[in-house]
Amino acid sequence: MSIDDVLARIDADLPAATTRLMDLLRIPSISTDPAFKGDCDRAADWLVADLQTIGIDAIKRDTTGHPMVVGHIDGPSGSDGPHLLFYGHYDVQPVDPLDLWDRDPFDPEIQDTPQGQVIRGRGSSDDKGQLMTFVEACRAWKAVHGELPCKITFFFEGEEESGSPSLVPFMQQNARELTADIALICDTGLFESAVPAITTQLRGLLGEDFTITGPNRDLHSGMYGGIAMNPIRVLTKILAGLHDDNGAVTLPGFYDGVPELTDEIRSQWQGLNFDHAAYLGDVGLKEPAGETGRTPLEMIWSRPTCDVNGIWGGYTGDGFKTVLPSQASAKLSFRLVGTQDPDAIRVAFRSYLEDNLPAGFTVDYLTEKGAPASQMSISDPAFEKARQALTDEWPRPASYIGCGGSIPIAGYFKEILGMDAMLIGFGRDDDQIHSPNEKYNVESFHKGTRSWARILHALTG
Amino acid sequence: MSIDDVLARIDADLPAATTRLMDLLRIPSISTDPAFKGDCDRAADWLVADLQTIGIDAIKRDTTGHPMVVGHIDGPSGSDGPHLLFYGHYDVQPVDPLDLWDRDPFDPEIQDTPQGQVIRGRGSSDDKGQLMTFVEACRAWKAVHGELPCKITFFFEGEEESGSPSLVPFMQQNARELTADIALICDTGLFESAVPAITTQLRGLLGEDFTITGPNRDLHSGMYGGIAMNPIRVLTKILAGLHDDNGAVTLPGFYDGVPELTDEIRSQWQGLNFDHAAYLGDVGLKEPAGETGRTPLEMIWSRPTCDVNGIWGGYTGDGFKTVLPSQASAKLSFRLVGTQDPDAIRVAFRSYLEDNLPAGFTVDYLTEKGAPASQMSISDPAFEKARQALTDEWPRPASYIGCGGSIPIAGYFKEILGMDAMLIGFGRDDDQIHSPNEKYNVESFHKGTRSWARILHALTG
Repeated sequence: MSIDDVLARIDADLPAATTRLMDLLRIPSISTDPAFKGDCDRAADWLVADLQTIGIDAIKRDTTGHPMVVGHIDGPSGSDGPHLLFYGHYDVQPVDPLDLWDRDPFDPEIQDTPQGQVIRGRGSSDDKGQLMTFVEACRAWKAVHGELPCKITFFFEGEEESGSPSLVPFMQQNARELTADIALICDTGLFESAVPAITTQLRGLLGEDFTITGPNRDLHSGMYGGIAMNPIRVLTKILAGLHDDNGAVTLPGFYDGVPELTDEIRSQWQGLNFDHAAYLGDVGLKEPAGETGRTPLEMIWSRPTCDVNGIWGGYTGDGFKTVLPSQASAKLSFRLVGTQDPDAIRVAFRSYLEDNLPAGFTVDYLTEKGAPASQMSISDPAFEKARQALTDEWPRPASYIGCGGSIPIAGYFKEILGMDAMLIGFGRDDDQIHSPNEKYNVESFHKGTRSWARILHALTG
Repeated sequence: MSIDDVLARIDADLPAATTRLMDLLRIPSISTDPAFKGDCDRAADWLVADLQTIGIDAIKRDTTGHPMVVGHIDGPSGSDGPHLLFYGHYDVQPVDPLDLWDRDPFDPEIQDTPQGQVIRGRGSSDDKGQLMTFVEACRAWKAVHGELPCKITFFFEGEEESGSPSLVPFMQQNARELTADIALICDTGLFESAVPAITTQLRGLLGEDFTITGPNRDLHSGMYGGIAMNPIRVLTKILAGLHDDNGAVTLPGFYDGVPELTDEIRSQWQGLNFDHAAYLGDVGLKEPAGETGRTPLEMIWSRPTCDVNGIWGGYTGDGFKTVLPSQASAKLSFRLVGTQDPDAIRVAFRSYLEDNLPAGFTVDYLTEKGAPASQMSISDPAFEKARQALTDEWPRPASYIGCGGSIPIAGYFKEILGMDAMLIGFGRDDDQIHSPNEKYNVESFHKGTRSWARILHALTG
């Protein structure tokens, strides 16, 4: 099977594909606002109908929230190709503040801009436009070859922008149906708006929220200052002791399970020529803050961190109150990588904290959360095939990249369904997702669709 | 002149003196509440009239707030005795919450309690009862001897419980009239409710209120965690560096001007047998937190401190927000002793802070305050005479003590009028000043009056 015919079909069908996307964009499927519940339902119906035109066995599946859309289609009979699952979401962010939009967010149009032709409208990039790149690739494939190259499951949710409350239960209840060989997720972007990328590692997160108590009531520093240990002093000393002079975290065993980059990944990341000075300069900073001897990309993608996300204690109003507070509190989070164990690190942190409390002080732990990092098995040949396919489509070679944050859906596929996910997307940094005037470049939509066709070809060739 | 006749007169007049105090206590002179403005005026009038019955040339003096009462009386003609100024305040604290009082706060009565006979009512201890100990001592002296032993100025204010806004301007405008050889202030207590005491050193205070700014906006720790320096991390490291492992403050020059105790004071303080375990245990603490090698009383009276009174930054609500905040803030105060210079310490602190800011970080200083410590010249023989007089009256020998906080009036007398002050009072720790069911022990009132008679005798003998 040649891919050229499919790509030619995609090129020829671009105006019609754009029209279809704009139809979908006209449905205000804002998932967080109950006023738009009917519109979310309508977007799901639209997708079911559209998938059915490609011959996909798609239906709307109810949840306690907005519906899921699930569709299946088999590949050629007798094919032993992989079973792929494609994930996207049809719900969109709210549009406030409306007066900052240059047009109705749900009346999309094609605009010529200095950044090229764009499709302007809520959801154009996040995630309806990205979702449709895969659907359009399948449509073109089907038109050219009469069938798709392998078994594919389509799985679209309508609650991604409101925390996906139905997602985990739905995956658990339908695990057998949804389990494939690998998941494809189109909800990320090009690296620095230019380099096609597969996100293969996402950091995990361990959160601690605690309050230390010293004196049994707030004290006057005139009466007790000097003799009573101040919980804020205790807290700042504990927090300051979490990093050494090289920026490394001091907890015993913290780096257990932190892998070094492979030569392949290191070389790819070097090739990205990440402009960390611009990345930091954009937010008013000058110097990378991470561990000595680590590159800026390692700091945000492949090294674990410890950060205080919130701290409070004592008097915080106007002027002065010479109080020695009874309590001081902090919220702390660790970004985790590799096989770092959140539970083991929690134990190490709490031991360190409690070992440094003065006699008579106590600590209360409030909410906690923990999730390990996600690391995809790029030894699976599918990854290298997909990377080559992206490289074939774009001017710059594709790269495996990391993500400093968590993308929960990737973890769910691994934990609940036992499959790795390839996170591939075509958004740009200036798409203004979650903001007024969201857009998706026509090039992202067009070359995104072509990219998926090439990936389907590569994974099944 | 024998003191015995005066003391006998005080003893005989105790019932009448108590009746007079209870008359004054019936006037609800709450200075913070405008509804009681007329009552404050009435309390001033009552004092003017009462002073006049002793032959004192007293008048009410208007201010922009509540009036001052100023009275003068000369000593024997040709006397070269000292000119004394006596200070007290006639205003009282609000009485909320009223339902926690066992009777009307302004309908005082004598009650038998496990702590002895007490006068129950708002202001009985703070400060009407204390103020009247001096007035009653003068009344008895005048009755016995026909005149007072030296020139005395009476200076009562009605705004002490509301921050004394008129005090400094009044002192400045009437400096010549109010300047005496020494001031006597009756607004403190017995040490541990038992040991008569003259407070001779009060700590000063330097306050800093600042915000450090790193990134120009709050960042997501998924995108920036590891590469962006977190202002809370910077702040905790700076604050943690303010004390060394021995509890000493690390700022260069911080201990310049911090005197060691004289042998005399050290010996008196040892004689107090301060029960620091009980003092700390009462507020739920176990170990003194001050500098290694210092006694607990030194820690609260004669050693300087550094405490964080408030700290805040980042997300402090429920649950987690993985934010790297743009800013972090703290309120810091230093208690000062001896001749420590608040300005020099402010410079040293700011240098230390700014030297430890990463490149690109900035700091904004908000409100600041500073006042040096007050140290009375106990080499003035008046102090030792007064201490002996107190020792003669009470079961335990009197002691010079310190005060960990500031009492502004003492500083004002020194700064504006150039005179030292002797802070002598007879309150007990359980007097519940500023709280419901305030009381003053009849013994405090009686022996307090006798103490002032003995002190007048000692200072003029």
